[in-house]
Amino acid sequence: MKKNVPIATVERVAKYLRCLKYLRYKGTKVISSKDLAELTKVTPEQVRKDLSYFGKFGKTGTGYDVNKLVKKLEKILKGKAKWNVCIIGAGSLGSALVNYPRFKESNFNIVALFDNNPEKIGKEINHIKVYDIAEFSRITEQKKIEIAVIAVPESARNDIENILSKNRIIRGVLNFTPITLNIKTRRKISIIDVDLSQKLYILTYLITKGKRR
Amino acid sequence: MKKNVPIATVERVAKYLRCLKYLRYKGTKVISSKDLAELTKVTPEQVRKDLSYFGKFGKTGTGYDVNKLVKKLEKILKGKAKWNVCIIGAGSLGSALVNYPRFKESNFNIVALFDNNPEKIGKEINHIKVYDIAEFSRITEQKKIEIAVIAVPESARNDIENILSKNRIIRGVLNFTPITLNIKTRRKISIIDVDLSQKLYILTYLITKGKRR
Repeated sequence: MKKNVPIATVERVAKYLRCLKYLRYKGTKVISSKDLAELTKVTPEQVRKDLSYFGKFGKTGTGYDVNKLVKKLEKILKGKAKWNVCIIGAGSLGSALVNYPRFKESNFNIVALFDNNPEKIGKEINHIKVYDIAEFSRITEQKKIEIAVIAVPESARNDIENILSKNRIIRGVLNFTPITLNIKTRRKISIIDVDLSQKLYILTYLITKGKRR
Repeated sequence: MKKNVPIATVERVAKYLRCLKYLRYKGTKVISSKDLAELTKVTPEQVRKDLSYFGKFGKTGTGYDVNKLVKKLEKILKGKAKWNVCIIGAGSLGSALVNYPRFKESNFNIVALFDNNPEKIGKEINHIKVYDIAEFSRITEQKKIEIAVIAVPESARNDIENILSKNRIIRGVLNFTPITLNIKTRRKISIIDVDLSQKLYILTYLITKGKRR
């Protein structure tokens, strides 16, 4: 495996994986790089180049074994089979994310919600308990939660930064707040910012240019 | 303006815009490509190269005028100031998206929800009315809705494809369902697929490799 894989490649590989899982579900056994490219809207050369970062897959002329490729890409991207995930913020977005079926299907298990609202603490949303954010370190340790999804309003930013800076368990953050988080810790924490309005900006750019993508 | 702008560039420009709007909000007047790069986690060369696709911004040695750059990038990405948006699916995700503050802040105005559930039709979620999906064409025309956000379960896929294939108003789709939509229309419709579990795959890849991103 090559060392410096561009993040754009990792993003596309995640897209291929999503497509391959759907093909597997539909019963497709083998797929060519050409067909995979068409389904994911890239070029066949791009598919081959992206996958070549991670090893040799498929034989020339016969295409990829869908099932094998799914398993290999899953392993490459996830590192381990199962991850425990918590959601910080039990508002409408946090509650919707608890219900998001793709997380569970991909073995990203949401095991706790956190909030500071006494009316929400102790309740369950879609069978997931809402814990007091003051208990964040204890619960993440107890439940071996390594990923936190942040779905709080902008005003809670400083609190979240403080809590994550003190925490010793969380290794990755999916940040739905609009602001780049400043987490002061010597440990490495990977952060991915998700801003859904950015997707609309890209969409309007494509509309305006008359591109389908 | 150069013609073939890579989609990855458009995505990064949307990210710069997000950062610049925050800087403007904080009162920053001027920013160097170096600082903008650091805030958005790319290289200064990348910032300069990406922006060069769209024209000349800033003077060498003095940096970019934040306010001017926000306005220019907004115009490039959005094409026009205001877009009317509807959400198809008034479940937990659709309801959360109605509340998503970034849409309104960026002048993406959610003006209608659609559902096929009689218990939801006619009600309001966060002041937005839920319409019968059977009225999709009439309402999109009446309210000049050009963007549809799809937040329905996988099982509703065929219905949505039929409805969008018949529709003559929608120009862009933000698709939260896990499946690539097959919209049969002669008009150009731009589609962006959003799969939040893909973000978790990228995150676990970064965690496993010990990268912060």
